[in-house]
Amino acid sequence: MSRKEKIAEWFRGLQTDIIQKLEAEDGIGKFGSENWERPGGGGGLTRLLVDGNIIEKGGVNFSAVFGETPAPIQKSFKIEGGDFFATGVSIVIHPINPFVPIIHMNVRYFELSNGQSWFGGGIDLTPAFVFEEDGKIFHQSMKNACEAYDAQAYRKFKETADDYFFIPHRNETRGIGGIFYDRMEANDDAQFEKLWTLTQSVGSTFAPIYTHLMAKRKNMPWTEAEKQWQLHRRSRYVEFNLVYDAGTKFGLETNGRTESILMSMPPLARWESNYVPNEGTEEWKSQQFFRKGIEWV
Amino acid sequence: MSRKEKIAEWFRGLQTDIIQKLEAEDGIGKFGSENWERPGGGGGLTRLLVDGNIIEKGGVNFSAVFGETPAPIQKSFKIEGGDFFATGVSIVIHPINPFVPIIHMNVRYFELSNGQSWFGGGIDLTPAFVFEEDGKIFHQSMKNACEAYDAQAYRKFKETADDYFFIPHRNETRGIGGIFYDRMEANDDAQFEKLWTLTQSVGSTFAPIYTHLMAKRKNMPWTEAEKQWQLHRRSRYVEFNLVYDAGTKFGLETNGRTESILMSMPPLARWESNYVPNEGTEEWKSQQFFRKGIEWV
Repeated sequence: MSRKEKIAEWFRGLQTDIIQKLEAEDGIGKFGSENWERPGGGGGLTRLLVDGNIIEKGGVNFSAVFGETPAPIQKSFKIEGGDFFATGVSIVIHPINPFVPIIHMNVRYFELSNGQSWFGGGIDLTPAFVFEEDGKIFHQSMKNACEAYDAQAYRKFKETADDYFFIPHRNETRGIGGIFYDRMEANDDAQFEKLWTLTQSVGSTFAPIYTHLMAKRKNMPWTEAEKQWQLHRRSRYVEFNLVYDAGTKFGLETNGRTESILMSMPPLARWESNYVPNEGTEEWKSQQFFRKGIEWV
Repeated sequence: MSRKEKIAEWFRGLQTDIIQKLEAEDGIGKFGSENWERPGGGGGLTRLLVDGNIIEKGGVNFSAVFGETPAPIQKSFKIEGGDFFATGVSIVIHPINPFVPIIHMNVRYFELSNGQSWFGGGIDLTPAFVFEEDGKIFHQSMKNACEAYDAQAYRKFKETADDYFFIPHRNETRGIGGIFYDRMEANDDAQFEKLWTLTQSVGSTFAPIYTHLMAKRKNMPWTEAEKQWQLHRRSRYVEFNLVYDAGTKFGLETNGRTESILMSMPPLARWESNYVPNEGTEEWKSQQFFRKGIEWV
């Protein structure tokens, strides 16, 4: 098996594994399956869960696509012609309970016929209500996932996530961040192995950390006002994804599969003009965490 | 009074007039007022109505700003340095009843210290449920508003609106269009007068046509399923505004007043993956109208 086949195979297994664990924790919801083919080569498996017991809407998508390198990718990577191969797993989970956080993960591998290859990945958390204790556990697990790569990796990837998941027009971060790395080139076999190990480590961290947070918060009772705060925070999620997210923009511009790209949209979101939570409330306290540079571990 | 003062004065009066008529038709809702100042010069009056009898969320904003021409405007207009003046009225109304359409209007005037000046404007309608009869009345009133300008104006501005209010990733228009014109330069006094007359005509058309549609549809009873379709269509409104709308993008990129720019966001919107209405339903029939090139008059 070639490298790229091995990676795609592992990603496909990761998708299955994560789905099993999410379904087990949800208890009721089941992920639907939709296979799709890319006209130019390859395809994917979109798996979507709606109206579960804990998950209101969740997508866990796998894809492995290849063929002639499309013009926008040639431009983006500053190359000319050739073939490409790209595979990855993308996840966004919108829970019902406002005390269970939204989570997002993406792990990906990209290869060109000229021999160059890159890895990217990350996980970030978007709670409506921030529990400091959960933030610490989440970031510690992100740190652990990066440990094998190198001692500075967590700090670097955490900063990248802080910078990336930022909404300039709101002057706030989307959530409490996590880790994010992109276009890390595998120049030689050693670097390839290191990046592949890192990416597997990140992928494997998703299910345990998120099912832990689901289990911990799923039985907390919530009020209508707390649900409204969640819907309000989801509007910021929409704003970030549609205005700034590079993957979303790139996907929409290059005629990607709209429903796969926009599976990240929340089931319901609310915009209230000039809304600012009252000082001292839990909403207000949570809002204070939506900024860069917080030391979680 | 200079031209620009005269125009700003008329726009300010238009805002007041439209608000009186919208409040009269709504019957319960009252627009709040917020004056704001622009650090570099000028300011505006934001007027927002929330939770009225017919209007769920509506903004009618006036602004008149001036000063040193900001770098992004210099770039956009391919000029260097100098002072600018810009004034306009912007409206977005999100009604409660799914049978009352969303409406958007913008009229604006832009002037540079080198003597160049431009007008822009337009009104477009976004019904969740399309009544052909209402579409005809609406487009006829748009045609009437353009009549004095020239015989071809409606056709041209209607095509521009079809092209502008299009969502490529959904392959559908935002609603049933209307008219839109932008950066029409007033090269001489005659052209200035023609454009100013057109812009006043468009501005004056807003209140009668929209209060007519409000009155006609406000008492139609609606079901929860019909409300859900409205929330679904609002998600497309969000996607258009955040991904494609030039004014929104420009505003967010140039550090505009976020709350004024995003007053266009609906109070609540719903994303359901892979949602397609069943053939033959009213939702499905309405969907058939969300395309370019429909002849309404």
